[in-house]
Formats: sequence, structure tokens, C-alpha cells
Amino acid sequence: MENNLKPGERLDELHRNGYYIIQNAEKFCFGMDAVLLSGFAAVKKGERALDLGTGTGIIPILLEAKTDGEHFTGLEIQLESADMAARSVAYNHLEAKIDIITGDIKDASKRFGASSFDVITTNPPYMIGNHGQSSDNQAKAIARHEVLCTLDDILRESVKLLKPKGRFYMVHRPFRLAEIMSKMLSYGLEPKRMKLVYPFVDKEPNMVLIEGLKGGNSRLTVEKPLIVYKEQGVYTDEIYDIYGY
Amino acid sequence: MENNLKPGERLDELHRNGYYIIQNAEKFCFGMDAVLLSGFAAVKKGERALDLGTGTGIIPILLEAKTDGEHFTGLEIQLESADMAARSVAYNHLEAKIDIITGDIKDASKRFGASSFDVITTNPPYMIGNHGQSSDNQAKAIARHEVLCTLDDILRESVKLLKPKGRFYMVHRPFRLAEIMSKMLSYGLEPKRMKLVYPFVDKEPNMVLIEGLKGGNSRLTVEKPLIVYKEQGVYTDEIYDIYGY
Repeated sequence: MENNLKPGERLDELHRNGYYIIQNAEKFCFGMDAVLLSGFAAVKKGERALDLGTGTGIIPILLEAKTDGEHFTGLEIQLESADMAARSVAYNHLEAKIDIITGDIKDASKRFGASSFDVITTNPPYMIGNHGQSSDNQAKAIARHEVLCTLDDILRESVKLLKPKGRFYMVHRPFRLAEIMSKMLSYGLEPKRMKLVYPFVDKEPNMVLIEGLKGGNSRLTVEKPLIVYKEQGVYTDEIYDIYGY
Repeated sequence: MENNLKPGERLDELHRNGYYIIQNAEKFCFGMDAVLLSGFAAVKKGERALDLGTGTGIIPILLEAKTDGEHFTGLEIQLESADMAARSVAYNHLEAKIDIITGDIKDASKRFGASSFDVITTNPPYMIGNHGQSSDNQAKAIARHEVLCTLDDILRESVKLLKPKGRFYMVHRPFRLAEIMSKMLSYGLEPKRMKLVYPFVDKEPNMVLIEGLKGGNSRLTVEKPLIVYKEQGVYTDEIYDIYGY
């Protein structure tokens, strides 16, 4: 396999089922966001899940390892990332369980059809606009900034793609929480669970995990806080557990 | 003063400026919610603040003690609570700083006029509807359930009552957070600060403190968590600090 790696790529262990993932530090590597989302999302026996903007495929690969879901699809617009994702799927012999599709989130409901998934996951670009990213960092800019798709695009496509009572899981930044809640409601994805991720117990949260239910009733459960570090450099037990160490 | 207490009433110390408050345990006593809101809300030098649904006047009395605000008004629909609030104001010699008005939140902008306050605070009824409260608990039912006013009433009146860039402070229950965020946005009260109150570090939050800005830009700061108990029966330092012990 080492010979199948392209220049700049590396093979990283995932500590789940012996799986590995191909990444390129110059382009984009998965962060804690994706790992926490894969710990927050539930995919049940027999269910089909779609990851919107899958990057190198980290979320479908982790969900395949962690859940009883029947099938996983990752949709990614950037050719190079999608190619890495597909090679990671092959390396882990997961071709029967995970499809990697190159395509645009904005066309996802046309491509896959309405009511075609039980679960949608997404770790979307967090930042509005493209604040002067240089073009040599285009891959990172597209992953981080709403250059090619917006929150509205994701919510509009998700509600179409989900079956009735289908579940939507997203990790995002708390500074956009009011907009996220309001837009989820307006698209018919009722926020049902939320978890804030605080780096330390005495610091502001830097991530929010949200579950929405297509056509759900109004009642949100805000879960206990997820604290990342017990002390500088030492993860809490909950983080070790999610990472599978 | 003890002679001015009516049957069932008692005089409780507030640990602020030597102030006291008249309460009646059979009707309604203030809770931690009101104290935390008075620690979260800012009323600056020269500003005028209105508390919607002030009950026994706990929030204006604490804000007068804690902030540099120029004047405070408490609006309360229940005659008996408003009467207790007015007697507490008199007991603390605060008649020049605090007005207690008996009246309906739904008419507040007509009564006080548009753009008449810099700050609004509210610890409103949390529960939707009146889930079979018996009539002998009517005072508590009105304080806890949306019998006489709804979240929509409060937000609609608040945005009218506030000056441009006026600030709105509310304590509420996390299970209604999505609705709160969405409705604040739709009424033009941009959520700017939010703090979740967790009884213990490993438990779900049971209160949320929110600041909205009339005509504000979109960007929410979610603050570090407020943890109430260090261990069973022992408050954290932050809680002791807010209570002023």
C-alpha cells in the first residue's frame, strides 16, 4: 500500500477496527470535529447514511467502524480529496459498505433522489465567505469557508435527501448557533439534541454538535458538556473513549 | 417592619447592600434563575432597565445593588406579588431608584412607550400551556406557565420597548433554545451572548442565560459553562460570587 501513496500523502492509523486513512498535511487533514461528530451521530441497523462534504472520507469510515449502519456514502466536490477517500476505502476493504462520490452538495438531492437516506452527517465549512485565502491554499479554503456551498445549501439539500423522521447530524462553530437553529427550524429540521464542546471546563466552547429530526416535534435536549482536556495536554476520559484509545 | 408583613410572608436577606425581600413560600419565592440573571445582565451608568414579570421584585432590587444603572422598573400582573415587591422597595428605601408597576406585559409598549428602555430583563414562565395546575396554585402557575403571556408576547413587546442597540436579557430552559433563538432573530433581537448553567459538570444544563441586541449583527458568543455545584451541596466559587456570600 505504501507504494499507492502519492507524493505528500501519509497513512494514519484510526484506532478503530485496524482502519487507516490516507491524508496529505499540505492539503487537509481531519480534525477533532470529525471524530466527535462520528461519536455523536447514531446510524442504526439497516440504515443508510450520507456524509455531505466528506473530504478524505473520515466520517463514513469511522461510522462504518462504530455503528451498525448498513451503508455509507461520502459526497465530496474536490477531486483530490475524493480520490484519497476512495483509496482509503479500498485500503480498508470497505468497498461494499462505503461509496465515495465526487459531486456538488448543491445537486445532491437531484443526484441521489428525495427521501433516500435515513441519516445525514456533515462537517461543513464554518466560515462565511472567503476572507482573503490565497489560491495556493484553495483546498483548505474550500473545506473551511463557504466558497462552494453555504449552510442554506446544506440544510435545503439535507431535508430533501432525508426520509421522513430522518436524522441530520452536524458539527459547527458556536458563534453561528442562532443562525443554525433558526435555519434548521425554517427548513423543517427540528433541533432535538445539542452538545457543546468546551476545550477546558473554564473556557468558551469551540464546537457544537447538533442533531435535527426531519418533521420532529419541538423539544431540544442539551446534553452534558463535552470537556476536551482535563489539564494541558491530557484528554478527558470521554475524549479517549470517542477516539478509541 | 416585621409588623408590615402579611400572614404567610417572611423577610429574607439578600446579601447585597443589606437589602431584604418580602416573600411568601405558599405563593412564589425567587429561585437561582433570578439571581443568575442578575449576575448575567449588565446595566450601565445612566441606563434605565425594565424587568418584565418581576414577581416580588427580586431582579430590579438585585440589579440596583449590583450595577450602576440609573433607574429600574418592575412590571408585574399579579396584584399580590406586585404589592410585596413595592413593600420590599420601600423597606430598602429604594423608591427613588425602583418603580413597581402593576400591569400586563402584553400592553407594556403602549404603557411605557416605544424605545423607552436601554435594558430589558425577564425571567418568564418557562412552560408552554398550563398542564393541569390546580386553581389553588394559581400564583405559581402564572409564574411558571404561559397562562397570561407567551414568549412571543415578551419578545414582541421587548423589541418595541428597547431603544436601538438596547439589550435584552432572559433566563429560560434549554429545551426551548431552538425556538428562543429563532424567535429572537425573527423579532430583531440578535442573540449575542449565551451561557448554559449545568447543575454539575457531568449533567445536562437546566438553565440558559441569553443576551440579545436590538438591531445587532450576527455573531453569538457562547460563554464558558456555569457549573453550580462542585460536589453535592457545595457551590462552585462562581456561584458564591454571584450570590455575594
